[in-house]
Formats: sequence, structure tokens, C-alpha cells
Amino acid sequence: MGISVELVRKFTILELLNYVKRQRILTLMVQFVHPATEDITLAGVLSALADPMRLRIVSNLLQKNGCMSCSEAAPCPDIAKSTLSHHFRILREAGLVRTSKIGVGHRNILRTDDIETRFPGLLNRILEFVD
Amino acid sequence: MGISVELVRKFTILELLNYVKRQRILTLMVQFVHPATEDITLAGVLSALADPMRLRIVSNLLQKNGCMSCSEAAPCPDIAKSTLSHHFRILREAGLVRTSKIGVGHRNILRTDDIETRFPGLLNRILEFVD
Repeated sequence: MGISVELVRKFTILELLNYVKRQRILTLMVQFVHPATEDITLAGVLSALADPMRLRIVSNLLQKNGCMSCSEAAPCPDIAKSTLSHHFRILREAGLVRTSKIGVGHRNILRTDDIETRFPGLLNRILEFVD
Repeated sequence: MGISVELVRKFTILELLNYVKRQRILTLMVQFVHPATEDITLAGVLSALADPMRLRIVSNLLQKNGCMSCSEAAPCPDIAKSTLSHHFRILREAGLVRTSKIGVGHRNILRTDDIETRFPGLLNRILEFVD
């Protein structure tokens, strides 16, 4: 009986650990919302770019042509982290930026191929006018 | 003294009429806000176009290439007049549309030359993707 209770306890703890692990994985999975290429809309892209700061972030990402942290892509160094997060969320949800977690940091890349597939030439034409 | 009072009265009435006339002219003048070409901003234009209905209104105006009333340029006939007015106000304030009063109606034209001066090729590239 003693062993049985021990087993039940063990299972419960294991199940609990698994549950926590699953929840953490789910949290990581739902942390960043990236629309599929075919779900990227013109109004959504224009709306995401309709802000001077986001225009400069996207322009920086395009110029560097690689992975950048939020603060590396920021137009100036004294922007609040929460403000940057907000801008990156809007860019991500419009399908312009893909964010992934590397270590403890976030890395962002511009979804140039996806945007080019949906709206050929649009992004470059818009970014031409960013100073 | 009687004539003098009459004169004062006449002047007062004339001044009052002029004041009313001036106020009416001012009201008509400030009725539509159109930014100067150099004040048209990229973020402003993108923001005004970041809506499926406004994209279609601008596309209609470009295709017809002339003066249109708000309802003529509307993407579908059953849109509330207030909704249309709201969309036209946003387009006007971004510098995309110029509205003038002709008789009792409003006529709208696309400010293609002004937009082309500020952002060459931008408007046509965006409108390519409007269905």
C-alpha cells in the first residue's frame, strides 16, 4: 500500500511536471503570431508602415539584411523597451517581421520574400522615401 | 444729430453685414482642410490608404481620372453617407484628395500630381494591388 501511494505520488508529480512543461512550450509557441504569407493583406502592411518609427525600423532591418534584436533595429537608442515591443508586435502581426527567441533574446528578420511574393516591388518603393 | 445717428446706424449695419459675410467666407474656406504638397507625409499617405474601403475609393478616383462626388467614388452603393464623409475627410487630410463645393454637392479629385511630386511612383505601385 505504501509503495502504491508512492507510485501515485510519483505519477502525479511527473504529470504535474509534464503539464508545466507543456504549458511552457505552448506559451513559447503562442508568444509570436506570424500570419501565413497568403494572409498578409495590403491594408495590414500599409497600416503597419504608417508610422515614422516603424518605417525606420523596417528600413534598418532591410539595410542590415539579417537578424537583429529589437534594440539593434531601433531608430534611436533611448526608446523605451515597451514602445519597441509594441512596434515589433504590429510589424510581426502584419507579416513584415519574423521574430524568434534565441537564448534569452529576440531576433528579428524582415519577411522580404513573403512580402515580395504578395506585393512585388511594394516594400522597396515605400522604403525609398524613408529618410 | 439725427443724420449722424442714421449714419452711425448705417455703418454699424454695413459692418455687421460685412462681418457676417467674412465669417461665411471663412467658414467656407476652412470647411475642407488640404495640406500643402510639401506637408504631405509618407506615414500620413500610408495611414490614409491602410483601409480596404479607402483603397477602393482612391482606385475608383484614379480610374475615372476626374471629378467625382463622394457617392460616385464609393466602392458600393449602400454605404452610409457619414461613413463616406469620414473616409473622404481622412483622404483629404492626408493630401490624397481635393474636395470642392460645386453647387450643393462636393466634388473630389485625386491629387495625383502632388503625390507624384512627393513620392514618385508610390501611389500607382500601391494601387496595383487593389482588387
